[in-house]
Amino acid sequence: MKILLIGYGAMNERVARLAEEKGHEIVGVIVRDSNNTYPYPTVEHIADAQDADVAIDFSNPELLLPLLEESFKLPLVIATTGEKEQIIQRLEALSTQMPVFFSANMSYGVHALTKILEAAVPLLRDYDIELTEAHHNKKVDAPSGTLVKLYDVIESLRDKTTPVYDRHEVNEKRTDDEIGIHAKRGGTIVGEHEVLFAGIDETIEITHRAQSKDIFANGAISAAEKLVKQTQGYYTFDNL
Amino acid sequence: MKILLIGYGAMNERVARLAEEKGHEIVGVIVRDSNNTYPYPTVEHIADAQDADVAIDFSNPELLLPLLEESFKLPLVIATTGEKEQIIQRLEALSTQMPVFFSANMSYGVHALTKILEAAVPLLRDYDIELTEAHHNKKVDAPSGTLVKLYDVIESLRDKTTPVYDRHEVNEKRTDDEIGIHAKRGGTIVGEHEVLFAGIDETIEITHRAQSKDIFANGAISAAEKLVKQTQGYYTFDNL
Amino acid sequence: MKILLIGYGAMNERVARLAEEKGHEIVGVIVRDSNNTYPYPTVEHIADAQDADVAIDFSNPELLLPLLEESFKLPLVIATTGEKEQIIQRLEALSTQMPVFFSANMSYGVHALTKILEAAVPLLRDYDIELTEAHHNKKVDAPSGTLVKLYDVIESLRDKTTPVYDRHEVNEKRTDDEIGIHAKRGGTIVGEHEVLFAGIDETIEITHRAQSKDIFANGAISAAEKLVKQTQGYYTFDNL
Amino acid sequence: MKILLIGYGAMNERVARLAEEKGHEIVGVIVRDSNNTYPYPTVEHIADAQDADVAIDFSNPELLLPLLEESFKLPLVIATTGEKEQIIQRLEALSTQMPVFFSANMSYGVHALTKILEAAVPLLRDYDIELTEAHHNKKVDAPSGTLVKLYDVIESLRDKTTPVYDRHEVNEKRTDDEIGIHAKRGGTIVGEHEVLFAGIDETIEITHRAQSKDIFANGAISAAEKLVKQTQGYYTFDNL
Repeated sequence: MKILLIGYGAMNERVARLAEEKGHEIVGVIVRDSNNTYPYPTVEHIADAQDADVAIDFSNPELLLPLLEESFKLPLVIATTGEKEQIIQRLEALSTQMPVFFSANMSYGVHALTKILEAAVPLLRDYDIELTEAHHNKKVDAPSGTLVKLYDVIESLRDKTTPVYDRHEVNEKRTDDEIGIHAKRGGTIVGEHEVLFAGIDETIEITHRAQSKDIFANGAISAAEKLVKQTQGYYTFDNL
Repeated sequence: MKILLIGYGAMNERVARLAEEKGHEIVGVIVRDSNNTYPYPTVEHIADAQDADVAIDFSNPELLLPLLEESFKLPLVIATTGEKEQIIQRLEALSTQMPVFFSANMSYGVHALTKILEAAVPLLRDYDIELTEAHHNKKVDAPSGTLVKLYDVIESLRDKTTPVYDRHEVNEKRTDDEIGIHAKRGGTIVGEHEVLFAGIDETIEITHRAQSKDIFANGAISAAEKLVKQTQGYYTFDNL
Repeated sequence: MKILLIGYGAMNERVARLAEEKGHEIVGVIVRDSNNTYPYPTVEHIADAQDADVAIDFSNPELLLPLLEESFKLPLVIATTGEKEQIIQRLEALSTQMPVFFSANMSYGVHALTKILEAAVPLLRDYDIELTEAHHNKKVDAPSGTLVKLYDVIESLRDKTTPVYDRHEVNEKRTDDEIGIHAKRGGTIVGEHEVLFAGIDETIEITHRAQSKDIFANGAISAAEKLVKQTQGYYTFDNL
Repeated sequence: MKILLIGYGAMNERVARLAEEKGHEIVGVIVRDSNNTYPYPTVEHIADAQDADVAIDFSNPELLLPLLEESFKLPLVIATTGEKEQIIQRLEALSTQMPVFFSANMSYGVHALTKILEAAVPLLRDYDIELTEAHHNKKVDAPSGTLVKLYDVIESLRDKTTPVYDRHEVNEKRTDDEIGIHAKRGGTIVGEHEVLFAGIDETIEITHRAQSKDIFANGAISAAEKLVKQTQGYYTFDNL
C-alpha cells in the first residue's frame, strides 16, 4: 500500500514506522508547518499525492477540515478527535464517492470490548457493575475517555445508572443503579480497563490491557488495508 | 412457591435451605432410600405431591428416569447429569403438557459466560486464545466440565482448534489454532474460569469466579420462579 | 480440644460448627443473655468450664472485660474489637500466668498479606502504590478496615503518603506520595484486597481474596490449636 | 555518566537510547565485527575508553571473557548469560580493584518479585502453590527462565516440591508438594509471572507484569548509576 499521512505527530510517526515494517510505503505527508524537515516528501493537498492508495489521518480539525473541502478521490482513514459532528458530516458527503473510515479510538481491541459489553450487559441485568481503569502517572484527566465510552454503553442498556466516584465516609449501602468508577494512576501503565459484574456468589470480569500505543497505529493501518478493497461508503469498525 | 425436591443430596439440601430463606416451602422429597429420615415428608411419585407448584431435581438417572415415565403434570427444573440424550428426549415429550427446564450447569453466570464468549470469539478472530480454570485441591478430574464447554463454544466458532495441555520441553512456537488449556488446583477454590484473547499489543480477558456452590442451587430456584409463570414448553437459559 | 466459647454470635456459631467438623468439642458458652436457648451448656465464669482446654472469644468489650477481671487459668484466643488498649493491657497482665493470643483480624491470610507488604514496600521505593478493595453491596463503610491496615503499613515505611479517594475532574498529575484508594461494591463479594505497585514498564500486584467468613473462625481455631501447646505468654500471629 | 557499551545488540541499542534520554553519553562500543558501522566510536579494549565512567555489557561469553582478562579499571555492569561460573569467578577477582555488578536478569522488578517470594513462602506453609507465566506467541521455550527462578526460590524454602506440567486425564487429587506450572502463549505479551498461594477459603496472588523489554535496559542503567558511586566490590541487586 502507498500511504499518504495527514499530520505527522507522535501517532503518525508510529504509523510510518509500523507501516514500513509491514512492507507498505509512505509516499507523502501533509503538515501545517512545511518548513520543518520530514523524512517523507511534503504535499499540500490530498489530490497532490497522485500515487497514494489511501490516506491515514492522525491530525486535528484545523488541518483536516479544510483538506476535506477540496476536490479529490482517495480512501480515507480518519482518526482526528474534536469537531466530531462537523467531521462526520463532511465524511458522509465524501463517502458517496470514495470509501471513508472513521473512529475516535483506532484500537480494535477497545472496539471489541464495547461490542462484548453490549452482549454482556443485557445478560447480566441483576449484577452490580463497577468500572476500573489504570493509566500512567502523567495522565491528568480521569476517568479515561475509553471508560466514559464503556459507561455510555452500559447507560444505554440499563434503565437507570448513576456514576459514583468516591465512597469513603459515605456510610450508605450501594444502590442498584450505582456504577462505581475507579481511576488508578501509576508508573507507565499504557491503559487497562476492567468491567466487573458482581452477582450472588459469582462475578464476571472483562478486562482489556493495552501494552503499547502501537495498537492505535496498527488499528489505523489495518483499517486502511481493508478499506482499499472497498467501494465507496462510510465505514466504522462495525461494518468493515 | 411450594417445591417438591427430586433427590436430597448435597445440592438439594442447599436448594431447601436457600429456598426457605427466600420464603418458599418444601412440600416433599422423592428419594431412593425412604428408610432414612429427612426433614421433609417423603413421597414416591411426582403426582403424589398434590400441592406442589414445581419440582426441582438434582438427582441421578436411576432415580429420575422412571419418575418421568409416570403420569403427572408439574413444572420441572431438571439438573441431573448423565444419560443426557435419554433425559432430553423424555423431557421434550413431557414439554407438550407442562413447562420443563433443563440445564447440565445451573449456574446462570456460567451460562452468561458462554453467551459472552459466543459474542467475543467472532470479534477476535486474529487473537490467540488460552483457557485457564482453577479449582480446589480435592478435584480429581481436569480440565473442568465448564472449561470443556467453553472450549466447545470456541471450536464451533473457529475454523480449526487444537487443545494443548503441556508446553514444557516442546521447544516450538505456538500455532494459530492452538488453544492452551491450564488447570490450577489449590486450597478450596470453588471455581474460576478465564478466557484470554491475546492480540498484537493488547489482550482481552473474560473471567468467571464462583464463590460458593450456592450458585447452582440459586440458579435452579431462580429458574423455578420463572418457570411456574410459563405455559407448557421446553425451556433452557436461552429462552427463559 | 475442649473449647469454651465467649460470645455466641454469628462468628462463634461458625467456630462451633467448624471446630466440631475438625473433631473438637464445645464444652460451654458464655453469653450475656442466658435466658435464650443455646446448643451448648451456658456457664457464667471462665473458671466454671473446668474441663476446657482453651477459650475462643468473638464477643464485645461489655461481655469480655469483666470476665478478664476474674480469677481463672485458661489459654485464651481473643478476637473482640473495640476498647483495644484496655483489652491488651489486661491480656498482658494475664499472660504472665497463661498463654494469651490476641488479634483484631483472625484471618491468617490477611496477616500474611501485611507481612508480605512489609517486605515489598522497602524493595519498591520508586513504585507508585494504589490500593483497591472489593466487598458485597450491603457493606456501608468504605474503605474496609483491612485496607486501612494495609495503608498504615505503607505509611510507616514511606517518607510521606497522602490518600486519594477521587480523581475525577481533578485534572492534575499524580504526585509521588499519593496512594490511590478504591472501594468496589457489588454482589456478595466476601472481601478482596489488592496492592498495586506501578513502576517504569513493570508492575507488581499482591492480591488477597477471601472466599468465606470461615477464614476468621478457622484462624481462631488454628491459633487455639497452637496456643494450647504453649507456656504462658502474650502471643500474636507474629510469634505463634 | 559516560558509558562504554560492551556488545551492541538489541538490548544495548535500547540501553543507548534510554541512557541518552536520561542525559547520559555513550562514549564507545566494543563489538566483535568492527567492520559494521555504528552510531558510536568503536574501541577494542575496555582500557581504550579512557573517559568512560562505567561499562554496560549485554553481550556473550565469546566477546566478554577475553576482555575481562585484560588490564583495566572501570566499574562494570555485566548482563551476559551463559558461562555463568566462569564469568562470576573472573568478576570476583576483578572486584578487589573496581566495583562490579552482575545479574542474569536486569529487571529490578523480577528481582523484587523473588525477594517478596522469599518473604511469602515461609509465611504460607500450608498453602498450595501454582506458578503461571504468559509470553508472546513467538517464544519457543517453556516455562520461562524467570519462572524456573521462582520455582527454585520455592524449592529452597519448602521440604519437598514436585513440578506438575499437565493434569489432564490424570484423575488424581493434587498432592501437597505439587507445584503446578502453567505456560500461556499468545499475541505479543512481553512477560507476566504469577504465584498463586491457595489456602482454606482464601488465596494470595503475587503478579509481575512487564510492559516492555526496556525494563532490562533501564535496570542496567540504574545499576550503573548506583555503581559509579561505590568503591571496589562485588555487587548484585541484593547489596546495591
